[in-house]
Parts: sequence; structure tokens; C-alpha cells
Amino acid sequence: MEQDLQQTIALLSRTPDVLGALLRGLPESWTRRGEGDGTWTAFDVVGHLAYCERVDWMTRARLILSARDNSEPPAFRPVDRQGQQRESAEKSLEQLLDEFSSFRRENVKELASLNLTPAEMTLEGLHPAFGPVTLSQLLATWATHDLTHLHQLSRILAHQYRDAVGPWSAYLGVLRCDGHSSPA
Amino acid sequence: MEQDLQQTIALLSRTPDVLGALLRGLPESWTRRGEGDGTWTAFDVVGHLAYCERVDWMTRARLILSARDNSEPPAFRPVDRQGQQRESAEKSLEQLLDEFSSFRRENVKELASLNLTPAEMTLEGLHPAFGPVTLSQLLATWATHDLTHLHQLSRILAHQYRDAVGPWSAYLGVLRCDGHSSPA
Repeated sequence: MEQDLQQTIALLSRTPDVLGALLRGLPESWTRRGEGDGTWTAFDVVGHLAYCERVDWMTRARLILSARDNSEPPAFRPVDRQGQQRESAEKSLEQLLDEFSSFRRENVKELASLNLTPAEMTLEGLHPAFGPVTLSQLLATWATHDLTHLHQLSRILAHQYRDAVGPWSAYLGVLRCDGHSSPA
Repeated sequence: MEQDLQQTIALLSRTPDVLGALLRGLPESWTRRGEGDGTWTAFDVVGHLAYCERVDWMTRARLILSARDNSEPPAFRPVDRQGQQRESAEKSLEQLLDEFSSFRRENVKELASLNLTPAEMTLEGLHPAFGPVTLSQLLATWATHDLTHLHQLSRILAHQYRDAVGPWSAYLGVLRCDGHSSPA
């Protein structure tokens, strides 16, 4: 389906509670283990989402809207891939979940208040890797980015029981997923 | 890591709230669409989880425990693959979420009350497809089965914005997941 602001907001506004329900109070044997050396833990995923929520999506949306009268679409600044490690290092998982939840609430409130028109949805920005993208694509990606990390989280957690399930591993699709996460 | 009853219960007891936070009140344009002809929607996934919760996991755990003095492990009855369609047909998503939540609460309460010993965790049942499995493997699979369907749910929802994200699809792993779900 096409990106629709109400559909997008319906998803965006739910993610903090989804992550909270899954991860708050969950033992660290689930939340602090990844899928092998150099892979992300559930803690890292939440740190990434909190960081993106602060520096990425609405920053880019605002930039597109602020440049609407320019002759060329404005260029997005690349997201600092080290930023989340720096900002998460001293925090607890609960703090990161709180931050994500708070940033998300503010962002969704601002997004809704913009009363974006169909014409504004077609305004463009320049992505550092693949050039012109529309505001509508940015908003659809914001919601889908939540889902790609929920997908990753379920895989990271399942990995911890990879051996414990014994022969059932043949029936559990999540254990056959090889992971496809890349930066957005 | 090895299956551990407290770790397993920590996950099992969270899943109803995770699904509720994600799906309660979400527009049907998200919850009633699958990934193409003959594929499951979010509604179908919740119907499957509610059905399994009633007929599968604890039924098999009780069977294993009840046959502990037999010379052979007891055979599991295959799960009726049509059962969930039959039982979900007339219900709303909210009803299925309520049922799943209620069955899960009862099951986790019963599981915790069994005070299973390490020796009991090694008791076996006979799975219709792959023979002997232990009670410990059954419990690990129960929790991982939640995660495989959370993995699937995030993929089904993301699929609806597959076109809407435009070139960003290259960066969204969930859109490259080809799905691997099979019955458990």
C-alpha cells in the first residue's frame, strides 16, 4: 500500500510499548547477548533506535520541508554510525527505552502537527547513498525501520535458544534467518 | 545457552503484552493483509498462537510428565493444522489476543507450579516428525516459537510498505527476508 500518515503514525506510536513489553525487566542473559562476535545485542538495537530517533528521521523531514522553495533538494547529512555506541555506553537498557519512548512521543507529536499535504509528501531530499528520496518515502522508511529492528530483535533472542530447542530448530524459521541488517 | 525455566518463563509471560502493544487497535490495513496469495496475515498469526496455546505446548508437557514411569516415551498427537482457521473464523483480532493472553497466563502459572527438576527436564516424548525430544527442548521451543512468529509479524507488516519506502528497501533487512515459517 502507499504510505499514509495515519497508518505510519499508528505504527510509530506503538513501537516504544512493544519494545518495553518485550525487554523491560528481561534478564540480561537475553538482552546482553548477540549472535556471535561483533554482532548486536538487544541492548545495542535499542541504543540504535534511540539514537536514530534523536538525530535522523525528523531532522531529515524538517530539512526537506525547510528547503521547499530551493531549486535543488537539500542533502541529508550521513548518520554518524559511531554515535549510538558513544551515547549508549554508560546507560542502562531501561534508560535507553525511556529515551527512545520520550523522543518518539515528541517526534510523533511534531509529525502530526505538521498537517502534511499530499504535495508536501512528494518533496525531496538527497540521500548520501542513493540520491533523491521523497518525504513520503522517508516516513514509510521510519516505520519500516522499526519493523526491521523488531525482526532483528526476535532473531537475536531466538539465537540464544538455538541449541536448546534440539531437533525443533528445523521448524523454527527465525533460526534459519541469516540476518540482513544494514544502516538506514 | 541452555534452556532455563526462569529464562523461558520470562519470555513466555511477555509475549501477550508484546502482541497487544503492537496489534491492539492497529488499523486493519496492517493486520488483515499478508505477503501475497495464501500467506498469513497478522490476524492469522495471532489465531495460530492462540490455538497452539490451547492445544499444543502444555498438553505435550503434561503428557511427558504423566508417562514418566512408562518404558517408552509417549507419542505426541500431531497438531491439527486446520484447527486455528476453524476456531478463528468468527472472532475479532482483539478476541484472539484476549484468548491468547488468557491461555498463556494459565499455562505459565501451571508451568511454574510444576517445580520441574533437572531430571524431569530430560524426560522424553515422541514427536511425530523427528522422534524423541526432551521436556527441556519442548519448553525452549515454546518460547522460540513466540519469537519466530514475532519475526514473521514484523515481516508481514513491513511487506505492506515494501513499495512505499522506495530506494531505502536496499537498507531494510526485513524486506530481504524470504520467510521461513513452518508448523511447530
